[in-house]
Amino acid sequence: MITLASDFGSPYPAAMKGVLLSRADDPRLVDVAHDLPRGDPRSAAFWLRFVLPEFPPAVHLAVVDPGVGTDRAAVAVRAGDHALVGPDNGSLVPPARALAEASADAGADPEIEVFAVRTDDPRSSTFHGRDVFAPAAAAVHEAGVERMDALDSLDPVDEYESVLFSDARVETGRAVGEVLVVDDFGNAVTNVPGSFLDGHRGGSVTVRTSGGEASVPVVETFADAPAGDPLVTVGSHGYVECDVNRGRGDEAFDLAPGRSVVLSFDEEETQLLPT
Amino acid sequence: MITLASDFGSPYPAAMKGVLLSRADDPRLVDVAHDLPRGDPRSAAFWLRFVLPEFPPAVHLAVVDPGVGTDRAAVAVRAGDHALVGPDNGSLVPPARALAEASADAGADPEIEVFAVRTDDPRSSTFHGRDVFAPAAAAVHEAGVERMDALDSLDPVDEYESVLFSDARVETGRAVGEVLVVDDFGNAVTNVPGSFLDGHRGGSVTVRTSGGEASVPVVETFADAPAGDPLVTVGSHGYVECDVNRGRGDEAFDLAPGRSVVLSFDEEETQLLPT
Amino acid sequence: MITLASDFGSPYPAAMKGVLLSRADDPRLVDVAHDLPRGDPRSAAFWLRFVLPEFPPAVHLAVVDPGVGTDRAAVAVRAGDHALVGPDNGSLVPPARALAEASADAGADPEIEVFAVRTDDPRSSTFHGRDVFAPAAAAVHEAGVERMDALDSLDPVDEYESVLFSDARVETGRAVGEVLVVDDFGNAVTNVPGSFLDGHRGGSVTVRTSGGEASVPVVETFADAPAGDPLVTVGSHGYVECDVNRGRGDEAFDLAPGRSVVLSFDEEETQLLPT
Repeated sequence: MITLASDFGSPYPAAMKGVLLSRADDPRLVDVAHDLPRGDPRSAAFWLRFVLPEFPPAVHLAVVDPGVGTDRAAVAVRAGDHALVGPDNGSLVPPARALAEASADAGADPEIEVFAVRTDDPRSSTFHGRDVFAPAAAAVHEAGVERMDALDSLDPVDEYESVLFSDARVETGRAVGEVLVVDDFGNAVTNVPGSFLDGHRGGSVTVRTSGGEASVPVVETFADAPAGDPLVTVGSHGYVECDVNRGRGDEAFDLAPGRSVVLSFDEEETQLLPT
Repeated sequence: MITLASDFGSPYPAAMKGVLLSRADDPRLVDVAHDLPRGDPRSAAFWLRFVLPEFPPAVHLAVVDPGVGTDRAAVAVRAGDHALVGPDNGSLVPPARALAEASADAGADPEIEVFAVRTDDPRSSTFHGRDVFAPAAAAVHEAGVERMDALDSLDPVDEYESVLFSDARVETGRAVGEVLVVDDFGNAVTNVPGSFLDGHRGGSVTVRTSGGEASVPVVETFADAPAGDPLVTVGSHGYVECDVNRGRGDEAFDLAPGRSVVLSFDEEETQLLPT
Repeated sequence: MITLASDFGSPYPAAMKGVLLSRADDPRLVDVAHDLPRGDPRSAAFWLRFVLPEFPPAVHLAVVDPGVGTDRAAVAVRAGDHALVGPDNGSLVPPARALAEASADAGADPEIEVFAVRTDDPRSSTFHGRDVFAPAAAAVHEAGVERMDALDSLDPVDEYESVLFSDARVETGRAVGEVLVVDDFGNAVTNVPGSFLDGHRGGSVTVRTSGGEASVPVVETFADAPAGDPLVTVGSHGYVECDVNRGRGDEAFDLAPGRSVVLSFDEEETQLLPT
């Protein structure tokens, strides 16, 4: 199985599919997404970390590559039963660590291994998805993840890029965090762990952003707030989200990736918390 | 075979694919659409009824679910050789009836059977596509549609939601209907049966909407009208559509789902009709 | 293997998938793109010619069909080990020739063969993707490309439409061309062969368009120019592109398909070229 993710829109991903089908022996292909935020390895890392652990063992071709054609390396990463192939810009490492951890639960190696992909002169300088990464993913698929280290085209490396996600600062009754991504619905996903809202569902929280300060309900799910109303909830990735039921949270709260969010419970409510 | 439809955009559908591939034994996955009109079970019902009967027997995972995380039930529906899995908000029943009727032509049970899906506490309250419906669809796929009633997780139910599409009022020379959906091209699909236009192709019809009243040509296909011109034709679902050749009918006629449309032939032309 | 390409958006392509899966015996389906520029056989020809040669032998269902329902013919084209099925509007011939040439390198027939598809009265006049082309593609898939000429439904024809791409006029130090397509990133792909830039990388070129005249850097890849800056490079199809690093070249240069582009090197730099 080979999954494909990119920021290529259309129809460039089809060229990668053609290469994979030409070079690998009847691989199952599964599209993850081809509209990842453009040129943004950080958002790619978030979404791949979110999605890829749902998959059975696979080779994941993941190309969000603003540095295509420069001297950034091409890498293949072994993570438990999975492998990832893409540019060395940090986007592959957080999902690789998540895959390795999940595999470790099943007794596999919890460490990731990173390999540089040696490539002959590629056909183009602007489409390494087709010319470098898809051939490398096909080669890993044909060798098998277990035996990928035997590929001549892969050299183990100790140094590689990684996206780091900063932790939110969480105190009793107050959390200072930032937006990691905004999803397709306009939900602004923060780095504040969902547990911050424990004991507050049905109550409210004060949200401070560049858009101002407001007290909004803490709900279990979108439809617990009236349509069009802002809300705070725990998203499916386990983080606090600033949302609007049937609307866009990013617009209501004036949020975008990297912007800061301060959440606080007022004193009376905080005193109700177990200490 | 498992088909997938949702209003999730991207990349959330990939998490459902991962779950299906992890839990079912090598199922073929086919994307139907992941940009169904957001939060609109009615449009979902229309499109699924339009598309799913083209498929061979399959399990159809269909998640347009504005009530995610509330107490609306999860359902699995058996419809002939097919099964549908999704929220109990009415979106599954019209396509299920269409699939059952098509199967009945081949000698199968023309009735649909609806089951409530019993779920353990799901991982999230906001992404039941991943946490409730995909696991249920995988279970139905593994059991087989014929034996899905033997699944412990399914309980037959007699009461369930269904989207109802109102019939147009059709008289000689006049039809009063409404827009069911607007498609990606901007074609406004009404509930007026295509037969209303019988005998009028090459003539014209008066269309009255909130956008005004106009006499427009009744054509066999888009290109029978000049580019940019409004027209009325019978769409591929058998209903009358208000379109613009190489333009957007919804804008030209000021139409949107639920808005009313009155079609009438002027007297002279009506008199030409066989009575 | 059957690939699918169209300008249908969503969810119409799913109806074609259903038909293919119902009529062909377990074909692998691969989506190429369903957002090809709408109603534009010329852009379709470009993109299909770019993408399809990456694929192993397959049947390619390609439907960009502004004349649906008119008397334009339906055609199936044999091109080496590949077949293409779609409307006779020229969109299939450039990719067919590219596929035949690629197959010829492997010893196969370098000529394309075009067949008219005989169809019974189709179910609709507006959705031949579902009603004419998908059934024809399924029939070719079942017969096999080698034996497709034995199909009763196919009649060889000598006359058919073809999109022609004009060549750029290239002189020493000066090229007069036009934009073929604008891609999803906003890159304006011209018909000037990439070789025109040989020996000029790291230098600059004067670009004249309806948007004005400017001297811009000639780079190896996007990131060789600062973010937001216009540039000229050779794209992955081998043509000169007018781009912006992390921005839209079509907007910066005021370009769209069909608009003219004049590229020239100033005299001093031209004198540096080998003659």
